[in-house]
Amino acid sequence: MNTFGIKFRLTTFGESHGAGIGCVIDGVPAGLKINEEYIQKELDKRKPGQNSYSTPRKESDKVEILSGVFENLSTGAPITLFIANQNQKSKDYSNIKDLFRPGHADMTYFYKYGIRDYRGGGRSSARETAARVAGGAIAQKMLESLNIKVQSGIFSIGGIEAINTDFKYANNSEIFALDKEKEELQKELIIKCKKSHDSIGGSVLLQIKNVPSGLGEPLYHKLDASLAGAMMGINGVKAVEIGEGVNASKLRGSENNDQISHEGFLSNHSGGILGGISTGEDIELKIHFKPTPSIFIPQSTIDTQKNVVNCKLKGRHDPCIAVRGSVVAKHMANLVIADMLLLNASSTMDKLKGAYL
Amino acid sequence: MNTFGIKFRLTTFGESHGAGIGCVIDGVPAGLKINEEYIQKELDKRKPGQNSYSTPRKESDKVEILSGVFENLSTGAPITLFIANQNQKSKDYSNIKDLFRPGHADMTYFYKYGIRDYRGGGRSSARETAARVAGGAIAQKMLESLNIKVQSGIFSIGGIEAINTDFKYANNSEIFALDKEKEELQKELIIKCKKSHDSIGGSVLLQIKNVPSGLGEPLYHKLDASLAGAMMGINGVKAVEIGEGVNASKLRGSENNDQISHEGFLSNHSGGILGGISTGEDIELKIHFKPTPSIFIPQSTIDTQKNVVNCKLKGRHDPCIAVRGSVVAKHMANLVIADMLLLNASSTMDKLKGAYL
Amino acid sequence: MNTFGIKFRLTTFGESHGAGIGCVIDGVPAGLKINEEYIQKELDKRKPGQNSYSTPRKESDKVEILSGVFENLSTGAPITLFIANQNQKSKDYSNIKDLFRPGHADMTYFYKYGIRDYRGGGRSSARETAARVAGGAIAQKMLESLNIKVQSGIFSIGGIEAINTDFKYANNSEIFALDKEKEELQKELIIKCKKSHDSIGGSVLLQIKNVPSGLGEPLYHKLDASLAGAMMGINGVKAVEIGEGVNASKLRGSENNDQISHEGFLSNHSGGILGGISTGEDIELKIHFKPTPSIFIPQSTIDTQKNVVNCKLKGRHDPCIAVRGSVVAKHMANLVIADMLLLNASSTMDKLKGAYL
Amino acid sequence: MNTFGIKFRLTTFGESHGAGIGCVIDGVPAGLKINEEYIQKELDKRKPGQNSYSTPRKESDKVEILSGVFENLSTGAPITLFIANQNQKSKDYSNIKDLFRPGHADMTYFYKYGIRDYRGGGRSSARETAARVAGGAIAQKMLESLNIKVQSGIFSIGGIEAINTDFKYANNSEIFALDKEKEELQKELIIKCKKSHDSIGGSVLLQIKNVPSGLGEPLYHKLDASLAGAMMGINGVKAVEIGEGVNASKLRGSENNDQISHEGFLSNHSGGILGGISTGEDIELKIHFKPTPSIFIPQSTIDTQKNVVNCKLKGRHDPCIAVRGSVVAKHMANLVIADMLLLNASSTMDKLKGAYL
Repeated sequence: MNTFGIKFRLTTFGESHGAGIGCVIDGVPAGLKINEEYIQKELDKRKPGQNSYSTPRKESDKVEILSGVFENLSTGAPITLFIANQNQKSKDYSNIKDLFRPGHADMTYFYKYGIRDYRGGGRSSARETAARVAGGAIAQKMLESLNIKVQSGIFSIGGIEAINTDFKYANNSEIFALDKEKEELQKELIIKCKKSHDSIGGSVLLQIKNVPSGLGEPLYHKLDASLAGAMMGINGVKAVEIGEGVNASKLRGSENNDQISHEGFLSNHSGGILGGISTGEDIELKIHFKPTPSIFIPQSTIDTQKNVVNCKLKGRHDPCIAVRGSVVAKHMANLVIADMLLLNASSTMDKLKGAYL
Repeated sequence: MNTFGIKFRLTTFGESHGAGIGCVIDGVPAGLKINEEYIQKELDKRKPGQNSYSTPRKESDKVEILSGVFENLSTGAPITLFIANQNQKSKDYSNIKDLFRPGHADMTYFYKYGIRDYRGGGRSSARETAARVAGGAIAQKMLESLNIKVQSGIFSIGGIEAINTDFKYANNSEIFALDKEKEELQKELIIKCKKSHDSIGGSVLLQIKNVPSGLGEPLYHKLDASLAGAMMGINGVKAVEIGEGVNASKLRGSENNDQISHEGFLSNHSGGILGGISTGEDIELKIHFKPTPSIFIPQSTIDTQKNVVNCKLKGRHDPCIAVRGSVVAKHMANLVIADMLLLNASSTMDKLKGAYL
Repeated sequence: MNTFGIKFRLTTFGESHGAGIGCVIDGVPAGLKINEEYIQKELDKRKPGQNSYSTPRKESDKVEILSGVFENLSTGAPITLFIANQNQKSKDYSNIKDLFRPGHADMTYFYKYGIRDYRGGGRSSARETAARVAGGAIAQKMLESLNIKVQSGIFSIGGIEAINTDFKYANNSEIFALDKEKEELQKELIIKCKKSHDSIGGSVLLQIKNVPSGLGEPLYHKLDASLAGAMMGINGVKAVEIGEGVNASKLRGSENNDQISHEGFLSNHSGGILGGISTGEDIELKIHFKPTPSIFIPQSTIDTQKNVVNCKLKGRHDPCIAVRGSVVAKHMANLVIADMLLLNASSTMDKLKGAYL
Repeated sequence: MNTFGIKFRLTTFGESHGAGIGCVIDGVPAGLKINEEYIQKELDKRKPGQNSYSTPRKESDKVEILSGVFENLSTGAPITLFIANQNQKSKDYSNIKDLFRPGHADMTYFYKYGIRDYRGGGRSSARETAARVAGGAIAQKMLESLNIKVQSGIFSIGGIEAINTDFKYANNSEIFALDKEKEELQKELIIKCKKSHDSIGGSVLLQIKNVPSGLGEPLYHKLDASLAGAMMGINGVKAVEIGEGVNASKLRGSENNDQISHEGFLSNHSGGILGGISTGEDIELKIHFKPTPSIFIPQSTIDTQKNVVNCKLKGRHDPCIAVRGSVVAKHMANLVIADMLLLNASSTMDKLKGAYL
């Protein structure tokens, strides 16, 4: 169940403290230009250890293409990307070998599988998201050729919200802040929490531009449902909003409907999706991350023998997972849109005939 | 793409104004007691035309079992349920034959498929959710045998929120209100919007009790991701929160982590899911519905020829889709949990051996 | 697991002696012309009780379209076809209520599901294949629009093999015989076996013309693998050959390779498939059916309590399942090719761009 | 589409002349003992260059576990196996860079993907089957714990058929011959063909012992259909027979039915499968391989520009692909049975309750 997507399929593998992490991307149409540099550039955005707002664990996160690309073109064969682990400090985890960190997946993995891979969360580590980014970069390359663009950035940190949102600015901000005016306050809050051995939640805004109308496969692979599932599956996400989101539940139909005039849609409360299918307007999502569960304040928990124990974590962790999560969210959206493009490629007899006659 | 689930699979079919709607449920273990009365009881909760808070379209929504059940037991064969349409008034739609209703899927279905089934939304009609309820009732019966219970009710209408939540009370409320104290205010707001030819949004609280720990298939069929996808796929849903939800993005780790003492978890900010796997605690979701897009106030829109036109809807519609949506949400959760139970049945070698040796 | 195909998906349901049998076909591109007459014509070819070479059970096998078609065009929504059962004689089965018929699925269904639906084999009855034919007719309609044609006929009965093969002739033969010269001998053998309360095996030749090159999804949904799986899944099939088939294991490379000259391929030992992908040549399969297991000669068997008992069958059965199996095989091939056409519609970036730009 | 199986899932990747080949196995229950030695032992059976009956291409085929195993136990996470390529001689292929080898997938891959990876067949090379063997070894380990055993061996070479079949003997034969008496004749024929720059076909017998009754998911993932699909998907296979196979089409019901007495089944014409579900008897298949298409006799073919050219192959190839194919067939069967075991683990409510209560 480590495969995402139906026709554009990402299968990820690997653990935080094993040989490395990687992915197989299947279903990429042949003839797409792909090189390691392009993928590396996306990985570098997610890479830890770049500034004081992320974990000091330094990983070069150097990607290697193991299959599926010949002379810089996709061949139609599965593309395998591999990132070897380097800066592992498994001994950081020796003191928590038998206890379950509060807010972590340690406990549930143990309950499910009866096996304890205590070294940095094993498969549940956010390190796995590097494989999503690598796979998402391939999707992004495909989207580029159709002029579709997914953008993301930090909307809020600990409740400090952006007022203006500028995705270009976010791209160059150390915390991917969308609002230059709020960036400093947001950064300060992160540092303050970090210094008090604590962590802080945050939220990400995601925008997809130039999506053709017609994407989304009703009724059980709707575009909004697929995006919501993709986002909620990212480590630490607790809420997903599309378009007007939570606020839609407070509005009247006359306020929430997007009327259309000669200039086009007069509003975008729908977030670019109606009936699970893209309208052609910008798609907009907001994704809410909980604070990093790994904090350095002592907490009460249990161990594998169900004894209550005091937990004092060591190790290296992000003070705010939303920051790097913003990059992951972008690439999960790339993957969803890529899959929907392929699925929709034979929605009508005209399209099918176009492919063969 | 009209199939939901991996091992416990629901395939729905049918349109608002065709012969009827129905579903095929595949993967139901043999030996489950099933009869039409049980399914009918669940359908009756969703049934329209029962009071002034839902559409006056009256449908008996009488379910018929067409296959898969022999002498009141599931046989392991696919179970087919069919609900014939009765109270269709296609002519209500004759005046909107060529125009796209604001906030509706009319436009996107037309863009995707190049075909216009103008009669009541065709496949995109909320009437299809009756098939989800029928299928969900089978899942619910299976969950009952494992003592798992999904409950839902109205949390808010137009921003009027419940303070106390009582699922038993909701069961008998005409609007499935969770809070007796707020019910009247919520009802009044619905009627007020209805009288002004408008509609109103609302939100639903969902709780799942006695879920065994270990459910959820990481990394791409996590329990929270699957629930979020299932909920966002319900007509009109614009946001899904799990556990602390949106608010988690405002908290610190020390506030949001659920510590454990001798009495068990000291809080449930996680909403019963960690790392995409159930902890054994209650699972809690909040689901936000937009207001019904079908309102009777004139709106500006376009027709199939892209002419801007004034749209005056007739027909019969719910003033607040969240109300009946609450029943649909419960059954989508039943379906997700049923699927996860089957998927998890061979998570360890011990379980596998138990099934064969 | 009652769903066949990945993108063009057939889900069948129903039992031999229940309300009826049917199917849901999902993934049909919108805009395909469909009417009940076309489907009925295909069903009539498989219909029992038409002559002395098939079971005397008479079924009108009248098909009804329940969803997915509006004004004789597919809408992109799932298409549901239903065939009500009529001429059921469940009491024929009362004497075998507790025993397992030799060569039948009675025993294995009971072992798997612990439930005994003794009425005519329940789900395992060949009657279910009517649903495959109905679904296959939709696929065939789609193939017609691309000029692709699947043909089938009886190659051998009890070892009496065709020498010349004429699919047009087969179409009008009561036993779908491919060779006019052998037809009488084949018919006589069937009648002889029938009169001695026995049954007889047979084999079917299948040809697919005008398949575009490039169909088949390596490595695990190859065209030949998919066809073989589809054919072996038909009731009573025990062997599948493609191209040179069994004989290929006796040849040398210099004999078996298909060389190419200015006139094209000089032979077709490959049966139109290389590396699991269509070459553009005719695809050819041979499918071998065992004799009908239901014979009226007493046989030794066991009952549900594992007592050894003597089995004397009553009921109405085909003396040679290969005959009507020939129609089923054709439609399973239609379904496979339809699915492969959709899956291949985005094999290259050029095709993908063609669908959107 | 490079994924095989539904719950026990093998995804393979890699090309003949790239970095290497490998696979991801997902769905393995946690707690299975796995080490590289066990997998290596199976790979060594398939390894080329071991004697004069296989290609002189020498590959160490050294397997490396990249993920999913911790302290020699499966963790429930995806298991990744990688085999680096070593003895590549891409220049062997420089003279066929633009032409299509008769009987090869060169042409069809080019037609499908528009890309030419001429180095040794790229993805279509039989080298990919090493990844199947590696994945199959994991499945085999799981089957061992349930006492299920898949065995295979060479039944015939160029029509020289075994009379007695001894799987133990086959295990130690250089050509996996089942019949000691025929082995020399079979070997001689292979060498004779090799010396005349030609190749020869052959067939494999496969037996599965101790399969629990009840495996197989009707109606579209029947055990026989799945096995047939798996076998036909192996490079060079042109026919699959189960139980009585082709011969069943020549028999009468009274001859082909397997009657049951106090001693159990009196025959096994069914090959251990009825209605697509295992009976508990031995499962038996015969698989027919074409001769290796790569021969060193000049042949007429075309190039990518559709010019007719004379083809003189160089390179290193097996004179008879059935020999090493016998190992691949065994492991494809291991994979099918493993998947069916997991799928069947919740076939009844009793089994489901057993997993949770």
